[in-house]
Amino acid sequence: MTGKAPLYNRLALIGVGLIGSSIARASRLQNVAGSIVATARSPATRRRIAELGLADQVVETNAAAVAGADLVIVSIPVGACGEVAREIGPYLAPGATVSDVGSVKGAVVRDMAPHLPANAHFVPAHPVAGTEFSGPDAGFAELFVNRWCILTPPDGTDAAATEKLATFWRALGANVETMTPDHHDLVLAITSHLPHLIAYTIVGTAAELGEVTRSEVLQFSAGGFRDFTRIAASDPTMWRDVFLANKDAVLEMLGRFNEDISALTRAIRNGDGEKLFEHFTHTRAIRKGIVQIGQDSPAPDFGRPHPDLPHTPLPKPYAGE
Amino acid sequence: MTGKAPLYNRLALIGVGLIGSSIARASRLQNVAGSIVATARSPATRRRIAELGLADQVVETNAAAVAGADLVIVSIPVGACGEVAREIGPYLAPGATVSDVGSVKGAVVRDMAPHLPANAHFVPAHPVAGTEFSGPDAGFAELFVNRWCILTPPDGTDAAATEKLATFWRALGANVETMTPDHHDLVLAITSHLPHLIAYTIVGTAAELGEVTRSEVLQFSAGGFRDFTRIAASDPTMWRDVFLANKDAVLEMLGRFNEDISALTRAIRNGDGEKLFEHFTHTRAIRKGIVQIGQDSPAPDFGRPHPDLPHTPLPKPYAGE
Repeated sequence: MTGKAPLYNRLALIGVGLIGSSIARASRLQNVAGSIVATARSPATRRRIAELGLADQVVETNAAAVAGADLVIVSIPVGACGEVAREIGPYLAPGATVSDVGSVKGAVVRDMAPHLPANAHFVPAHPVAGTEFSGPDAGFAELFVNRWCILTPPDGTDAAATEKLATFWRALGANVETMTPDHHDLVLAITSHLPHLIAYTIVGTAAELGEVTRSEVLQFSAGGFRDFTRIAASDPTMWRDVFLANKDAVLEMLGRFNEDISALTRAIRNGDGEKLFEHFTHTRAIRKGIVQIGQDSPAPDFGRPHPDLPHTPLPKPYAGE
Repeated sequence: MTGKAPLYNRLALIGVGLIGSSIARASRLQNVAGSIVATARSPATRRRIAELGLADQVVETNAAAVAGADLVIVSIPVGACGEVAREIGPYLAPGATVSDVGSVKGAVVRDMAPHLPANAHFVPAHPVAGTEFSGPDAGFAELFVNRWCILTPPDGTDAAATEKLATFWRALGANVETMTPDHHDLVLAITSHLPHLIAYTIVGTAAELGEVTRSEVLQFSAGGFRDFTRIAASDPTMWRDVFLANKDAVLEMLGRFNEDISALTRAIRNGDGEKLFEHFTHTRAIRKGIVQIGQDSPAPDFGRPHPDLPHTPLPKPYAGE
């Protein structure tokens, strides 16, 4: 630890799930908050925050949380952000920075901005990081390391406030990028929202088949299906809100996806192997790009990652009858 | 190593890619083959097999490979299996077992069976295991551990020959299941073929967008897209053949997927949050089932699996201006 003053004096966390609790954990290690005050809607979550020691103070209301805080981060489903902004607006300290972590930015700006006082700095943020788990126990301090955090300050936002929040996220390990809310929503529609929708769809399709039993689907999931179930296990409330809040961009990307899957379906129906081969070769190259820029591991994945492999032992050798 | 006689005297491997080379590596450790003879279509692959020491003998033709072998495993794209059966048929030792590893079974049975002599035992197999890498260097002995291997012996196959091949796969660590070729093709259409087709599609869709650049797609892929690119990096030749060979079942599953995605699209368009929430809750439960039966790790995945996490270090703490 350094003896220098922390970046912000008092960090208020509204919502302490996977993302909020990871911010809390990392902030404590990284000298970016002198103290942390946290709140959550449910009494059970508030109790758990206290048990885990994630904050210096756990309070019952959003208004109490933001009192005296110079940084407020709202980490809740995007559909609830407007209401929270309305609640906290009158209680914000002058000059406080208000941010969020939502996966949709246009709707969050639209819903929150009108409720925030002119002397607060509103700098929406989206850390593009996560796992398929939720809740305060799921977070960990390294979640944002080498991940991107996208800031979408509305026109006229104080540049120093934006830069200070960028410093905050860099201290948590993230790379920071700035773009407009609308462009953010288009980029995320294809890189995140559409993949989730498709994963949710196919997992549902598989669950409803009469000819193939549920247990067969689970049993033979290592053939590819398994990779979809991971993202189709993400938090339902969060994702409901994402699709409702980014409807236009998601519908646009869905339209293009449907055109493309129709073309591949036609190639299969017509036995057009050349077209299939060409497409599959092209997509393999894209994977290489992702590994090259460090957004995924090149290690082969066979559904049993982490320390237990490649050391999973073979059975005893064949020893005759 | 045991002093007991190996399960088979001589194993002939035709095709030594990810699967064939994993069979070779595991067979050497598990006392299931007295000797291994291997061949591959390309001289470069044959040289590499020899360099890696994967076989006792590397030969140039399929006919030479099967001479004297009591187990022949064909590990090549399914579209090439018929031609190989035609080539090896006349050279098979009496009583030899012929098997394969193809992801489609109906077409393989249809293409191979007519070329095999009556005194050979034909036991098609499909080890449901793999990674996104290909070639003889990509294999490893533990690939099949705790994975399923599905045997689809045609009616009238010698039960002892089938059971012996099951013993072989169990010695390589696999769990063995037996079903008809047609049922196999339906199960795999939903658990493997459709997921691959969808992953190939969305990765292609993302690559063709004008408003979102290729580098943005790669950069922000951690939001979900990344998980699709892994399976869309699988071997193009193998997958072209899978879709051509299992056309009917894949088209059937595609039809159902399209119905389901239309229903979710409509829910988004209508702002029907309740329907979305209900669907997403349902799919989360299916993920739990897969983890419970050991077909995936419960460890959270954030694109940097394996030993490097959760130990990825945070940057140095904020140290002031």
